[in-house]
Amino acid sequence: MSEEAQRFVDADRPGLRPFLPTTSAFHRGADSPSAYLERCLEAAERWEPRIGAFVCRNVESARTAAAESTARWHLGQPLSPVDGLPVGVKDIIETYDMPTEFGSPLFEGHHGGEDAAAVAALRAAGAVVLGKTVTTEFAAAQPGRTRNPWDPRRTPGGSSSGSAAAVGAGLVPAALGTQVLGSLIRPAGYCGVYGFKPSVGALNRGGAGDSRLTQSVHGVLAASLPECWAVAHAIAVRAGGDPGYTGLTGPSRPGDTLPSRLALLQTPGWADVSDGARTACSAAVRRFRDAGVEIVDRAHDPAVEAVELAIAEARLASGRIVAWESRWPLVEYRRRGAHLLSASIRQRLSEAEAMNSNEYGELLAAREAARDCYQRLAADVDGCLTLSAPAAAPLGLTSTGDSRFAAPSSYLGVPAVSLPVLHDADLPLGLQLMGFRDADSALVSIALAADALWR
Amino acid sequence: MSEEAQRFVDADRPGLRPFLPTTSAFHRGADSPSAYLERCLEAAERWEPRIGAFVCRNVESARTAAAESTARWHLGQPLSPVDGLPVGVKDIIETYDMPTEFGSPLFEGHHGGEDAAAVAALRAAGAVVLGKTVTTEFAAAQPGRTRNPWDPRRTPGGSSSGSAAAVGAGLVPAALGTQVLGSLIRPAGYCGVYGFKPSVGALNRGGAGDSRLTQSVHGVLAASLPECWAVAHAIAVRAGGDPGYTGLTGPSRPGDTLPSRLALLQTPGWADVSDGARTACSAAVRRFRDAGVEIVDRAHDPAVEAVELAIAEARLASGRIVAWESRWPLVEYRRRGAHLLSASIRQRLSEAEAMNSNEYGELLAAREAARDCYQRLAADVDGCLTLSAPAAAPLGLTSTGDSRFAAPSSYLGVPAVSLPVLHDADLPLGLQLMGFRDADSALVSIALAADALWR
Repeated sequence: MSEEAQRFVDADRPGLRPFLPTTSAFHRGADSPSAYLERCLEAAERWEPRIGAFVCRNVESARTAAAESTARWHLGQPLSPVDGLPVGVKDIIETYDMPTEFGSPLFEGHHGGEDAAAVAALRAAGAVVLGKTVTTEFAAAQPGRTRNPWDPRRTPGGSSSGSAAAVGAGLVPAALGTQVLGSLIRPAGYCGVYGFKPSVGALNRGGAGDSRLTQSVHGVLAASLPECWAVAHAIAVRAGGDPGYTGLTGPSRPGDTLPSRLALLQTPGWADVSDGARTACSAAVRRFRDAGVEIVDRAHDPAVEAVELAIAEARLASGRIVAWESRWPLVEYRRRGAHLLSASIRQRLSEAEAMNSNEYGELLAAREAARDCYQRLAADVDGCLTLSAPAAAPLGLTSTGDSRFAAPSSYLGVPAVSLPVLHDADLPLGLQLMGFRDADSALVSIALAADALWR
Repeated sequence: MSEEAQRFVDADRPGLRPFLPTTSAFHRGADSPSAYLERCLEAAERWEPRIGAFVCRNVESARTAAAESTARWHLGQPLSPVDGLPVGVKDIIETYDMPTEFGSPLFEGHHGGEDAAAVAALRAAGAVVLGKTVTTEFAAAQPGRTRNPWDPRRTPGGSSSGSAAAVGAGLVPAALGTQVLGSLIRPAGYCGVYGFKPSVGALNRGGAGDSRLTQSVHGVLAASLPECWAVAHAIAVRAGGDPGYTGLTGPSRPGDTLPSRLALLQTPGWADVSDGARTACSAAVRRFRDAGVEIVDRAHDPAVEAVELAIAEARLASGRIVAWESRWPLVEYRRRGAHLLSASIRQRLSEAEAMNSNEYGELLAAREAARDCYQRLAADVDGCLTLSAPAAAPLGLTSTGDSRFAAPSSYLGVPAVSLPVLHDADLPLGLQLMGFRDADSALVSIALAADALWR
């Protein structure tokens, strides 16, 4: 083991820093958003040099916002459940007080001057925007500099790398991310945090770099599932969903509901699941069964088998859809500075330029058929169960890991949650639950009950 | 009559400057894109001071592009049918070599540094981007400085004001515009030019200020219908449609097809049609009938009556949909400088802030039902016939006129064409034809045949 890694494992273990439990102390005056923020900043002093989760922070502005929040709590008039919550913002989402660099040297120092819809909504809800978190280049494959808080030799996952690592190390209780393929569920699993990827269209993506991608969605990485939901709900109430979508609906605090029946999705890639992950998954299935939850799978239910077949090419098909939809602006990025683009982004553009609109139309039709097939499963089960990735975070920082288990929920446009309740070789492993389109709060209720099975 | 108006009517009448007929001369070497551009620039010297169609021009860059096009034609290797075509670009669509100001002092000098998808596609097809044309503020209600080339006391219509006026006065053969309510069809009618509003999703709106609006679409104002189509087709081939849509399809040069049967849509607002427009419309119906085209209307066909009822509130409902979808970024614009926003834009934001996502969902559902109702008409008729506006361009520059006749095609998401073949009190009046969703080339074929009835 290298000296650096040795120092790392000798240090404190990473730890989540939940916010919502402290709000009762805010009410009593025993704690305050300002004091909470200072604890986050102290954690950052210890952890940030090791994990590199942030591109930049605006500490002064955050302290001002926290002080304003403290005053509101003092008056007993918080703006929302997330008033005072320090939040990280994935660096493909615009903020008026910080640059947005999209993980690309092409946008070094780029400053759009506006808050994205989700950021404006969070500020209006009283949240404290602390900083911009590292993203892979244009939220695609090329990693940023962030390391996994559980082991600096391992990837934190991507593309919401910095958001997951920051929450995993307790630098913020929650951070915004996005997922078009696997960018929330995978890093949530790798970094041992809660992840919530809402239904397609659930949250307004205005002002974000992914807003032209039909299956991308904003989501939340947080220290607890109620915090994931509270952040998403605060955005939806104030900014609505994407144009053409009604947007996320549901109560501000969903209750927990143990599901009656879940489908175990093995998804493509099951053959590559690590021994540790396979053992953990089997144990999870037993735990559900012991709690009275029926678990069905492809071997025993034709409707599940139909879904497995429908998502067999989810990652590949999603990749081609995203490539076509990225053709513009990538042509412009190439014109502006091809030498500043990674080989993988140039490859995505080449792939797109070899496609035509007929092929794209066929991909859309196949995706729609897969969505219809999956929706039929709603008559049989309350949701689906699988892993967030085939294994814990792999060694190495040149790849963000395997997105095969995370891609289906994006392809299907359905909500998904990653719970940090499993382990693979002493590293975090996510348990993934998938719900049905626009039934996001129902999925969260199931996931709350599932999470409780591990407490 | 004021001295200014007197000088105006004494001057040359406005005239369209078609491009496609000259391309055979380019082939022969008898003419060239460079010479064609110089004729456009001469016309601008005479007309631009009177009509104010352009926000800015990049003459040097246009001359370079025209020279390159001239060289390609000289070699017999034009890139496309629009190679060398000077084009104006509505100033809500980004261009890398010119600012994009969105018709708002908030964006004075704003320079995004990129070409929008449509502009990049047109440059790749060899078109010569001459300048940015005046738009109303954020393509909404507040007029810019442009005047109608037929009478400077009258509005050119909006929001694609400068594009329509520039084409109407012969400063360019074609210009890009956008329509979410009436912004192509209405100014086309008022300025006596050809207008083509494609099906929703037909052209990639990446890099344009309207790209978050679900019923907005890029379209073309031009000196002839073949040029409208050629420009749209050149964009679609290179940039595709919006994400989630296959995009505009069809041959590069559709033939003309006389329709068998058209529905006369009176649309809401028929009671306010001017005497001159009513007479012109009746004469148009007679001309179609004389050519053997059957014309049905709400009084004689229940399917037409159903459509009339479905679009009765098209303008109102569209306005509310657009308001909700504009909430962001308007909240950001207000934060950045409320005093730089017009009263009408602030009113749009207030309207949006009084709405909620349930109401938006109901508006989307009603729009979908209206679209289904209209689509059923496709079994009965080849298309619909109506006016582009209830009258010729009204006097005054503080309003862009009446959008009630133009709004239905946007609400329905169907293609529409405005033909400058009618007159009202010696001013141009547009004849509008509407087609069916994603059958854009079929509509253009019908419109070509209709246009020929007036030759």
